[in-house]
Amino acid sequence: MTQIRFALAQIDTCVGDLAGNAAKVLDFSRRAAEEGSAKVVVFPEMTLTGYPIEDLALRRTFRQAAWDTANDLAADLRKAGLRDLYVVVGTVGTDRATDKPYNRLVVLHDGVVWAGYDKHFLPNYGVFDEFRIFKAGDRSVVLDVDGARLGVAICEDIWQDGGPVAELAGRDIDALVTINGSPYEEGKGDVRLDLAKRRAAEVGAPLIYLNQVGGQDDLVFDGGSFVVESDGTLVERSPMFMEDLSFWTLDTGKVHQAKSTIAPLPDPDEEVYTACVLGLKDYMAKNRFTGVTLGLSGGIDSALVAAMAADAVGGANVHGISMPSMYSSDGSKDDAADLAANIGAHYDVQPIEPLFDAYQNQLHLDGVAAENLQARIRGVIVMAYSNSKGLLAVATGNKSELACGYSTIYGDAVGGYAPIKDLLKTRVWELARWRNKAAAAGVGIGGLRIVGNERGDAGTPLKDGVMIPVASIEKAPSAELRPGQKDSDSLPEYALLDKVLAAYIEHAHGRADLLADGFDEKTVDTVMRLVDRAEWKRRQYPLGPKVTALAFGRDRRLPITNAFRE
Amino acid sequence: MTQIRFALAQIDTCVGDLAGNAAKVLDFSRRAAEEGSAKVVVFPEMTLTGYPIEDLALRRTFRQAAWDTANDLAADLRKAGLRDLYVVVGTVGTDRATDKPYNRLVVLHDGVVWAGYDKHFLPNYGVFDEFRIFKAGDRSVVLDVDGARLGVAICEDIWQDGGPVAELAGRDIDALVTINGSPYEEGKGDVRLDLAKRRAAEVGAPLIYLNQVGGQDDLVFDGGSFVVESDGTLVERSPMFMEDLSFWTLDTGKVHQAKSTIAPLPDPDEEVYTACVLGLKDYMAKNRFTGVTLGLSGGIDSALVAAMAADAVGGANVHGISMPSMYSSDGSKDDAADLAANIGAHYDVQPIEPLFDAYQNQLHLDGVAAENLQARIRGVIVMAYSNSKGLLAVATGNKSELACGYSTIYGDAVGGYAPIKDLLKTRVWELARWRNKAAAAGVGIGGLRIVGNERGDAGTPLKDGVMIPVASIEKAPSAELRPGQKDSDSLPEYALLDKVLAAYIEHAHGRADLLADGFDEKTVDTVMRLVDRAEWKRRQYPLGPKVTALAFGRDRRLPITNAFRE
Repeated sequence: MTQIRFALAQIDTCVGDLAGNAAKVLDFSRRAAEEGSAKVVVFPEMTLTGYPIEDLALRRTFRQAAWDTANDLAADLRKAGLRDLYVVVGTVGTDRATDKPYNRLVVLHDGVVWAGYDKHFLPNYGVFDEFRIFKAGDRSVVLDVDGARLGVAICEDIWQDGGPVAELAGRDIDALVTINGSPYEEGKGDVRLDLAKRRAAEVGAPLIYLNQVGGQDDLVFDGGSFVVESDGTLVERSPMFMEDLSFWTLDTGKVHQAKSTIAPLPDPDEEVYTACVLGLKDYMAKNRFTGVTLGLSGGIDSALVAAMAADAVGGANVHGISMPSMYSSDGSKDDAADLAANIGAHYDVQPIEPLFDAYQNQLHLDGVAAENLQARIRGVIVMAYSNSKGLLAVATGNKSELACGYSTIYGDAVGGYAPIKDLLKTRVWELARWRNKAAAAGVGIGGLRIVGNERGDAGTPLKDGVMIPVASIEKAPSAELRPGQKDSDSLPEYALLDKVLAAYIEHAHGRADLLADGFDEKTVDTVMRLVDRAEWKRRQYPLGPKVTALAFGRDRRLPITNAFRE
Repeated sequence: MTQIRFALAQIDTCVGDLAGNAAKVLDFSRRAAEEGSAKVVVFPEMTLTGYPIEDLALRRTFRQAAWDTANDLAADLRKAGLRDLYVVVGTVGTDRATDKPYNRLVVLHDGVVWAGYDKHFLPNYGVFDEFRIFKAGDRSVVLDVDGARLGVAICEDIWQDGGPVAELAGRDIDALVTINGSPYEEGKGDVRLDLAKRRAAEVGAPLIYLNQVGGQDDLVFDGGSFVVESDGTLVERSPMFMEDLSFWTLDTGKVHQAKSTIAPLPDPDEEVYTACVLGLKDYMAKNRFTGVTLGLSGGIDSALVAAMAADAVGGANVHGISMPSMYSSDGSKDDAADLAANIGAHYDVQPIEPLFDAYQNQLHLDGVAAENLQARIRGVIVMAYSNSKGLLAVATGNKSELACGYSTIYGDAVGGYAPIKDLLKTRVWELARWRNKAAAAGVGIGGLRIVGNERGDAGTPLKDGVMIPVASIEKAPSAELRPGQKDSDSLPEYALLDKVLAAYIEHAHGRADLLADGFDEKTVDTVMRLVDRAEWKRRQYPLGPKVTALAFGRDRRLPITNAFRE
């Protein structure tokens, strides 16, 4: 019978930043010992290297540097008076026989790298390519910490039946410690918790689920680490989208453990909105951008992206550009200006008509070519702001547009990051309404609870108490590239379109399946044709955060050259 | 003792075009029987579906359609009087127990789908993701054809030791039939042949290596099918880069087989040049483009790409645009015009100065922002030609530029295909010289031996007998975006740069390795910094044909957000 005090160190790492990640481990370890008298501090999957590292795993110098970092960190922990602490971190290892990389868990203790466990189940579906870069580990590991027997596992190891966790079920462990880099998607929190309950029951011991938090390219890690007992009782939960250090005590002599803090969950709209903001915020921070620029059309997409950008880095770091043409309505121009004022953004007006005329003097375009020209002139202006002021250009396209190719490549599609590329248009409207509700309830710019933004700086004054102008949300969507144009001239109504897209993209339903789903033939054929033809444009679209079960990008790998139409 | 007459049907399939691929199998099977009295006709890996199909494998309706196609084709072969022929094709199968896809070989015979073998070793490195989409087969298969015992294998099965081929070594086979979708890269032909010799010796029988030919997105399949005996003697070789139907007879009573045709190999420059042309040609054909447009600067990159485009689809289908600025030299303008005339291309001049002035009236840019503006104005013009004339825009960047980010995103980087993106600058020069030599030797536009172009239509008149103006090859490279600008102002000399790039990119050498390679510290740090920082641009760059051991794209998957600098 022994008591083990665990610290759950839910941190935001950066891929490749070995020194920075190690410094953060040292800092959180010190806090774990000082603030919580912890015996064991648990960090996320591949703590030292960041996650996912992709083909960096194949670089010999990277693995060598990671190894050196782990050893130096163990020594630094001892020097800091933390020799008695067991520090559980993830890193990249190497199989000496084959020189192949492992996804490895190590324990730093008493100044040395003390024990190692290699991930057994390597995810190779969706966004994951771990068979490509890692060798699978083949044995389970039990750590003895002051007489308590701690089993360990890495992320996918608990998602598949069998393997090391099944082995641990027969090894009489007192707790199962799992370190994870589990990317966010809507509704995944419940799936993880159910799974963890099942594994806790299987091994007959509490399960500690420690998840990474923060953005890495197209992935957002949502944190929300937790502890469940073998009977499924939740005894600890860390907040989502923030770094956190929580504590929980295992008493090996007790059947039921004392509860620790249980952080509340955000509502579903807040959750998705915050994921997008965190993705953008971390992309900027980790790539050293301090400000963004984007075109503000007065439409809902650019308004929502601007609000997210302001929440990520503050309105004063957002540079909105209104680029009206001869087809832009006065309402749109006013809505763009109001939005910029509400979020405290810089706001410039750059009319495109003189530029359009200059091109047309030479090119004499009409039809779609002339429409695309307007969008591309805007793209050039946005990139001019980006280049001359050192700002990150953000693209404002949503998933419905991206699916159907309803955007102009090198026009409205320019940018380094695309915060709402995984949101269907109907979801864009929902999140805009949610953001306005939150603003009315006092959540000002920067007031979301996310990494590096915990305290917020609410208080930007809102015109009429509304952050995103109501007209931007309620008017019929239009690209305003010709007189009277409406999205519905070219696309099915979004309420229908988004349902077809969810079935075709997220569920990989083919033509026969879609007809069986009850969609009419004409709509199905139109949508499939649009989606298939736009693959080449999607390949050149900027990164953006995955928030659904299946995002465009590495989550959905289809050939561009593809004649299949069923 | 029996004689089996084989036909090697080296065809160009299209991903997803089940009906078209099946029609081609029927046609080649008919020819195999009529022209060669073949008993067995062998087609490439995943003949019916095209290859690689990526996540199409996960679509239930696609697998159903492939299954229906195989059965219909078997019936059609019987109806065509070919019931006695054994037609070996690849397709996608499904494991009934798990509903997971297989990479499958089937034999169509006597009106039915007669036998099946599932690929065992699934490549999951480089450009391959087969663990993601396929289940591994787990048994070897021997076909009995008129008393001859034929072992079968699919591509990767012969690249790894053990597995079905090792099993076949103990099963007394008379020949090993392998169907392949092996993508081209420089020097790979020799590697394949050596490997095949080793496997033929292992199984103690001749090995038939049937490879696909043609372009599929970023891959080019080079054909070059062959037969080797167990002692390593080459007894048949089909041509590279062309569809082909060759014949070879197996006599099970003989130790040494009679030789068939041995197609000559192209020289190394011709090989790479032709691979680029075939990649472009097939991308266009399979995506229904008949013409291309590109900017012609008078520089070597655009000149080489224009020549390749003319070789792919004829000069009359190439629309070159000269877009001089205030910084363009007269020499450059003349070289562009000469090149266009030599290849028989359309040629327009669109000065960008009026457009540049119009922007500058509003934006007042300087430095790099003003340089990028010029490139982006050109991008808008190229895309205007593309949109208004229905032409494929091709990007002209080379691998050295792409590596270092020495190009303007949304400027010179626009396009749907990038024919020389995997050629280092020094290779660009070599291929330009080779193309001029070939032209001098009488290889006119369209005169290369590639798929669908077998007869060529040589004969476009060349000014001074030189296709690519000598000045384009010999002058110092310059982007001409400011007075007197040279590439060497920003980059190491290409002769050095390309060596560092080959080591850093193709061989994944880190900083310590590069220094050990003998490169100086300043160059190494400059190049690594440039390459790492340009990752976000490369992600948005068009597809182009892989011709080296490691191309940018899915062959090299590195995070954009990545702080590692060693």
